[in-house]
Amino acid sequence: MTLIDDAATGTQYERLTTLGEQLRRSLDGAYADERAEARATFPTENLLRDPELDVNQSRTWTLERLRELDERGFGHTGVPDGPDAVSDPLTAVLTFEMLSHGDLSVTIKSGVQFGLFGGAVTNLGTEWHHEQFLPGITRLTLLGGFAMTELGHGSDVQSLETTITYIPESDEFEVDSPTPGATKAYIGNAAKDGTMAAVFGQLIVDGKGHGVHTILVPIRDDNGDDAPGVTTGDQGHKGGLLGVDNGTVRFDHVRVPRAMLLNRFGGVDDEGSYVSIIDNPNRRFFTMLGTLVRGRVCVGGGGAIAARRALSIATRYALTRRQFPAAGRPGGVLLLDYLTHQRRLLPRIARSYALGFAQNELISALVKVQGGEPSTEADQRDLETRAAGLKAVSTWFANDTVQEAREACGGAGYLSENQLVEMRRDVDIFATFEGDNTVLMQLVAKALLTDYRKEWSELDRTGVVQASARVAGEQMVEATSVNLVLEKLADAVRRKPEETTLTDRRWHALMFEERARHSLESLARRMRAASKSGGDQFEAFNALGEHVQFVAKAHMERVILQAFIDALDECEEGEHKQTLDRLCSLFALGSIHDQRAWFMEHNRISSSRSKAIGEQLDVLCRELRPHALSLVEGLGIPEEWLGAAILKA
Amino acid sequence: MTLIDDAATGTQYERLTTLGEQLRRSLDGAYADERAEARATFPTENLLRDPELDVNQSRTWTLERLRELDERGFGHTGVPDGPDAVSDPLTAVLTFEMLSHGDLSVTIKSGVQFGLFGGAVTNLGTEWHHEQFLPGITRLTLLGGFAMTELGHGSDVQSLETTITYIPESDEFEVDSPTPGATKAYIGNAAKDGTMAAVFGQLIVDGKGHGVHTILVPIRDDNGDDAPGVTTGDQGHKGGLLGVDNGTVRFDHVRVPRAMLLNRFGGVDDEGSYVSIIDNPNRRFFTMLGTLVRGRVCVGGGGAIAARRALSIATRYALTRRQFPAAGRPGGVLLLDYLTHQRRLLPRIARSYALGFAQNELISALVKVQGGEPSTEADQRDLETRAAGLKAVSTWFANDTVQEAREACGGAGYLSENQLVEMRRDVDIFATFEGDNTVLMQLVAKALLTDYRKEWSELDRTGVVQASARVAGEQMVEATSVNLVLEKLADAVRRKPEETTLTDRRWHALMFEERARHSLESLARRMRAASKSGGDQFEAFNALGEHVQFVAKAHMERVILQAFIDALDECEEGEHKQTLDRLCSLFALGSIHDQRAWFMEHNRISSSRSKAIGEQLDVLCRELRPHALSLVEGLGIPEEWLGAAILKA
Repeated sequence: MTLIDDAATGTQYERLTTLGEQLRRSLDGAYADERAEARATFPTENLLRDPELDVNQSRTWTLERLRELDERGFGHTGVPDGPDAVSDPLTAVLTFEMLSHGDLSVTIKSGVQFGLFGGAVTNLGTEWHHEQFLPGITRLTLLGGFAMTELGHGSDVQSLETTITYIPESDEFEVDSPTPGATKAYIGNAAKDGTMAAVFGQLIVDGKGHGVHTILVPIRDDNGDDAPGVTTGDQGHKGGLLGVDNGTVRFDHVRVPRAMLLNRFGGVDDEGSYVSIIDNPNRRFFTMLGTLVRGRVCVGGGGAIAARRALSIATRYALTRRQFPAAGRPGGVLLLDYLTHQRRLLPRIARSYALGFAQNELISALVKVQGGEPSTEADQRDLETRAAGLKAVSTWFANDTVQEAREACGGAGYLSENQLVEMRRDVDIFATFEGDNTVLMQLVAKALLTDYRKEWSELDRTGVVQASARVAGEQMVEATSVNLVLEKLADAVRRKPEETTLTDRRWHALMFEERARHSLESLARRMRAASKSGGDQFEAFNALGEHVQFVAKAHMERVILQAFIDALDECEEGEHKQTLDRLCSLFALGSIHDQRAWFMEHNRISSSRSKAIGEQLDVLCRELRPHALSLVEGLGIPEEWLGAAILKA
Repeated sequence: MTLIDDAATGTQYERLTTLGEQLRRSLDGAYADERAEARATFPTENLLRDPELDVNQSRTWTLERLRELDERGFGHTGVPDGPDAVSDPLTAVLTFEMLSHGDLSVTIKSGVQFGLFGGAVTNLGTEWHHEQFLPGITRLTLLGGFAMTELGHGSDVQSLETTITYIPESDEFEVDSPTPGATKAYIGNAAKDGTMAAVFGQLIVDGKGHGVHTILVPIRDDNGDDAPGVTTGDQGHKGGLLGVDNGTVRFDHVRVPRAMLLNRFGGVDDEGSYVSIIDNPNRRFFTMLGTLVRGRVCVGGGGAIAARRALSIATRYALTRRQFPAAGRPGGVLLLDYLTHQRRLLPRIARSYALGFAQNELISALVKVQGGEPSTEADQRDLETRAAGLKAVSTWFANDTVQEAREACGGAGYLSENQLVEMRRDVDIFATFEGDNTVLMQLVAKALLTDYRKEWSELDRTGVVQASARVAGEQMVEATSVNLVLEKLADAVRRKPEETTLTDRRWHALMFEERARHSLESLARRMRAASKSGGDQFEAFNALGEHVQFVAKAHMERVILQAFIDALDECEEGEHKQTLDRLCSLFALGSIHDQRAWFMEHNRISSSRSKAIGEQLDVLCRELRPHALSLVEGLGIPEEWLGAAILKA
């Protein structure tokens, strides 16, 4: 029990170690006040769903819990409730994070309703839509789905088959699913609760296609019956998130008034002609999708919080559970005193901090682009790339970590009362929705290559291609907006890298820089060769698939290390900074260790140094072991919220 | 639809490619006839559990399904049904495998009843127990639990706290749980169905402890009420296996007649004295546990079958599903034509074959030891080591593979109707029960070190320690009963390893040998240094934890490659053998690739060769890609049995 009752106010405070409190403040970063306030006011009576609830009960419970939370300030906050209100992306993201401390069905249901459906209306609609629909959306009287994905087209949004055809005779649009593959699928709120959907499809005006646009279509009446021409389906029991009613929607020539098209970026005017503020269809498409970037910021953040919860449970358990007796420990060895157990948990705690710092910087970037401050197209593009990459990295990490925590708790980890298995089920799909992780990493690599190619081709024209690989690389770093701190640190040890210690941040920076730069440069060369090769172009590029993933991961590792170093710079000297510094080393060295084969293959580290890294990881784990409780306190999940039976005395 | 109706007999046959049929026969190996027969007769009408069933419904369904299967020859087969019957370990293991093709709760319920509870009575009991209890156990009228694990003691069986105290006055035993930590936990059949348990505890006779023994204790009456002094608990909802009623049992000075002690290896005679056929208590303990080795053989095999089911679903889906359009593929690229997708699935298919061959050899070893043929103590010890290692390796692989298959199917993979998420939930705990995998790998390493130390210390006495590392290593290979085929292959290329191709089996053998041998030798050296070091002995050994795991894995990889090579030797030349050969290369090279850092660190491969391995994996994937359907047919799961909605046209 780490709560203190304050008799005077009737509230309870968490009792933290000094170090834990400092670490938490660092990890909360620029949003420490907002997050502390949210923690203090978050309604926790009804935090976790009973795993025994079936699909219907789970859906009912989830919607009720969402209404309750919304009433208490943890729902549509940040989403405008009408045409005069402004969007507040910071509050929206922090609210999503806070929801992720509890049942994840509620979190995702909230994301579907406010983030996706509400976000489509806010970002793709115009004043009339805001006036008509935002009040209902934010008050939860109008529940809606975000109908983008089709059965035949998961990741390939540009190929959607649904058509939105303008009918001049009646000044309406006709929404149609021409094939079974055009059926919208996996749509939250579609199986049961939603009465409307924001439907993505190919806009056709006067026989001409204008690419993917979004239109609001009523899908159910107030009795819950399908609207005329609409066929909804229930996708029923899933791997997790039972509280979210995912379903299918099919349209058979459904007519809606012209006004229902979300026409901020393109629509049909009173004369029945297509009009858009963006001429280039490709750019229009990406601009429209780009406004939806917040979903990825949220999902990555939510996944990271789930990982923190799991690590908190497993670490706290490992601090009480004893296993075999050993010399000098007749009562049995504490689980966390086994080095193998430390190696399972502590590097993941370090990475949790690293991802948290990167998420903070990502939120700042989102606020800059969407919060009303001046921002450039480059800012937007950088935001999208980072959001895609961090979403993938964080949700993969979440899946791996929750599972590791489950196994680290042995049989107890498998009991639903200890929360890990339910969390694991729910977080699983985070790796797929809001963009399949593998596809998102392809986007990251593609963005890096685009920047690179731009530099490259400019150099090309000046005739210095042979000598340009190096230069291009350096310019690229700037172009992709990773700032120069890492590069400067790296430069300081570039000439004699193996004379540094294994915890020298400059050497970490150098390794991260080299991995990202070299792999990108060689990918660019291989891409170029592939495009010039004869034969099957697809196969030529296909062969680069693993390389593409590597490049994206290497880039994201650099972004994350950068964020950790930035956070360390904010920190005053003392035990707190020393602990964070060790965590940073554990993260950085762990990342190098995981890919030490690559570093040896590319002569970046010697084989003897590589062997030493594993030993240094052991040293760091041993140094951090005494602070384990503070480390998980710093992760920001109050013990009581974990809801794990094994942690109750 | 790959079934052919035979109008004459009313049965359906699977239609397989020629290659698929040949591969299946190879993978079925020495048990091809038995397995084909089992496939042909396995009742499949009720194969998979409805994921919507709640805990109670799941338990009811599971028990009913088990009774149905048992009646049709897929239950207690192989378990003796009375004192005159003999145990048939081969049939028992093959039945467990077959059950693993369907709902895993049924499989595990069967394992608890027939394998664990029945196995304890069979292997630890004597004629009276067989006569009294085996008929009820095999007819499912007496359901029982295997009460070994305690809340306070998961992996540490020797420290169990439950006491079994002989009471001479009444010629009874008193079974007691002296502390809350002594409560039996995670016991299948304990929450609801079981009326008896085989209880493991410390036997105390006349005030003297004789170590862990097993006794049968009634835990419930026919009304389902707890027996006097017994308190059962229900562990309720779990991460999976909802159909198995895991629970807790606590004993408060419960008396049972003397005869209830399973006294094959030790008991109390008519004079009230402890008697045992094995004097050494430690040896007695391990002999008793050793008889239970079949459980690990079964669980490893079952996990491997789950992985095959998952790979069959994901691969068959990837052969129909199209993603982005590409040059020359306007209709979209088949998922399995993406090299990244091939790299996700094909190496895991190769490893599935490898594990299958190793499992076949393990079953042979089990049959040798438990099937009535003459066998030595060394055979028994080798069986235990291999069973522990293969159980760990196979169940880790199952977890990883089912998850990868889930993600490879995207959102569809998350729908319960496609089976992957339910399979993932059920197989999760395979990594923990029947021995936590990490602890099992410690056992493997310990066994290797024991063999090694024996050789070492003998050499020590002859005064040739300095020169002996090499010799010791070679003798050890024999001592641990890996046969000499790998060693011979390795020797052929030992002098110029880098002049081989990357698919040269001799080079694979050399790498596997070197990894296993060198890591074991260096562990032995470090162990020796640790034991001689001053200070905290626990910490000195603790520092070797990761090394211990590496040694065990390296050893198991060698065992598995050996089995693959043995299977290839059985095979006639032709496309079939060529395909198996490529699968073997993909497995072997994948294993080297995963640990190429180690090989470089220990100067076993050059950095340029290491880089080439990744490219060779791509080549092998491309070569195997056209045979993908045959490869999964060979895995032995008829398409209809997969029950995945995405595979239904």
